[in-house]
Amino acid sequence: MPKTTGHGDREKYLVARLAKKIPSIGSFGNRAVPFGIGDDSAVLRPSGQSEFVVSCDFSLEGVHFRGATHPAVSIGYRCLVRAASDIVAMGACPRYFLVALALPAEKTPPAAKGANWLDSFSSGMGRAARELGMLLIGGDITVNQSVSICITVIGELPAGLAISRAGARPGHLIYVTGTLGAAQLGLEILLRGSTRKPAPAKLLQPHLYPRIPVGFAQAVARRRIPSAMMDISDGLSTDLSRMCESSRTGARLFAAQIPQVDAHRPALDPLQLALHGGEDYSLLFTAPPRRAPLLRAIAAKTKTRITHIGEITRSRKILLVDSNGHESPLEPRGWDPFRVKNQ
Amino acid sequence: MPKTTGHGDREKYLVARLAKKIPSIGSFGNRAVPFGIGDDSAVLRPSGQSEFVVSCDFSLEGVHFRGATHPAVSIGYRCLVRAASDIVAMGACPRYFLVALALPAEKTPPAAKGANWLDSFSSGMGRAARELGMLLIGGDITVNQSVSICITVIGELPAGLAISRAGARPGHLIYVTGTLGAAQLGLEILLRGSTRKPAPAKLLQPHLYPRIPVGFAQAVARRRIPSAMMDISDGLSTDLSRMCESSRTGARLFAAQIPQVDAHRPALDPLQLALHGGEDYSLLFTAPPRRAPLLRAIAAKTKTRITHIGEITRSRKILLVDSNGHESPLEPRGWDPFRVKNQ
Repeated sequence: MPKTTGHGDREKYLVARLAKKIPSIGSFGNRAVPFGIGDDSAVLRPSGQSEFVVSCDFSLEGVHFRGATHPAVSIGYRCLVRAASDIVAMGACPRYFLVALALPAEKTPPAAKGANWLDSFSSGMGRAARELGMLLIGGDITVNQSVSICITVIGELPAGLAISRAGARPGHLIYVTGTLGAAQLGLEILLRGSTRKPAPAKLLQPHLYPRIPVGFAQAVARRRIPSAMMDISDGLSTDLSRMCESSRTGARLFAAQIPQVDAHRPALDPLQLALHGGEDYSLLFTAPPRRAPLLRAIAAKTKTRITHIGEITRSRKILLVDSNGHESPLEPRGWDPFRVKNQ
Repeated sequence: MPKTTGHGDREKYLVARLAKKIPSIGSFGNRAVPFGIGDDSAVLRPSGQSEFVVSCDFSLEGVHFRGATHPAVSIGYRCLVRAASDIVAMGACPRYFLVALALPAEKTPPAAKGANWLDSFSSGMGRAARELGMLLIGGDITVNQSVSICITVIGELPAGLAISRAGARPGHLIYVTGTLGAAQLGLEILLRGSTRKPAPAKLLQPHLYPRIPVGFAQAVARRRIPSAMMDISDGLSTDLSRMCESSRTGARLFAAQIPQVDAHRPALDPLQLALHGGEDYSLLFTAPPRRAPLLRAIAAKTKTRITHIGEITRSRKILLVDSNGHESPLEPRGWDPFRVKNQ
């Protein structure tokens, strides 16, 4: 693994332990990644007319997860999915990742006998890597008081097919994949407990182990269907405002059409969860109306739920239209790094 | 900047503030990076028969630097140089970087009037980026209790020319660039003060603003001279042991030939600084003896000091040979993430 910090043997041991549970390029590399883990850097050999897509993403204890609340296996799973979501939202095929990991010494083996934090973390990350078809190609391991993870993800796609968030045009339809607010509901239940039976395992799933529509994103990108696409990481209201700002447009959303969860708690409003709840990693995208039939066909083929929730407007306002046709401005009130801490 | 976490406006403002002082791809991109800052991910278009080299590297408050001791401008400078060093050590041309930055709210403008931490940090990073010829293409900004920085660096080089650390062969000569121990001496003086006049600004320089031999590394890589190459980030003793382990060789180092600093403090031994002091970011490389004349010519042309300090051996031991010809085993006792903390 490129650049392990500190005394050789301990870090080398931790890297080996990590790589054991995560699909990795190994010590010898392959045709596309000709150097293995253990050198200063990973080398990537582009195949034919492809482009690489790169993004990096923090997952920090106390900000993005709580050490006492979130299981290590979920932390490992989520941080990779969360990072991969950014390259999937460009239409790219996720390929490789680097992990920079800082953690307290007591979270590493063999401090605790049997199961330990690093092994569980690696299992979760390995599961996500297998589901996404990604290979670990490098990183950095060091010690810190709290857990800090920074994941760099690299995807590949045919040249010229990347979908930006800036291409939405007036008259284009706005779509989302999946159900919105499910991850936020899972977080609320995790932090405050459920008032309903059955046990909330199924309700926690979208928060602890989010899934992203990889096949759908690639299929629509290959056919150049979306005019703009991004992932909903910080909540629909915030991410739609970013898309509209990048595209220099506005939008009208139809509240009744937004795919919402059953809130399971009287205090939670499904529409508010859907509008402002973060971390669903659903796709938000726009397309000209004439592409609607092909979109539906691809959604059916890739078993992805898509919902038409609004339309792009020339006016720069973002409006929410209720079931009576009443319009009100939609403020960006999505995820805030302080919120988890302050709860 | 791809994926800014949290409420849109504040992060957007911070990103703009950061990018103002750092050469960046801007909002519109260019031929090689067709999308600008502001989308989910950066897109890289490989040019011709080139390969990309990727690495990531943490710089953490309390581990890699001290918030109270290190000036923000040095932290910004060093974290990029430190990360770039890994790709330069492969022989690649440094091109792009992503910055994941977590920092306390009070370190961001406009909390403090006039100069503030983020601006100084950005200035230092901008200076390093200009010196290295690198462009900021993305990242992640969020809030945390202490400063955490993760830099992902991307370099480019002609296909097949990357130099691994695993190619050293018995009989090859071992070289280093620059002077070893200078950064460690700077750190000692920074933490404990100098006992000598003149003022230690010049002595602090190698620690606060390390330089890396970019031109030399690329020139020798293009001519395939080094059989193995890596940067000395954790100290010669530790990094040479890693190179020998990867290459399945041993080494003999000649103590008197190792380029050492004038220690300026009676308590510090120049040889110990040179053997175990970290963060010089000098290059450690090996080459067959017949390439020595060409190496010297390239060193002269690129104004890089290189020194032949030993030889690779078939025996797996790493031995230090003193001026009397006495051999003793050299243990890897380089940089340890706990050390700064415990001082």
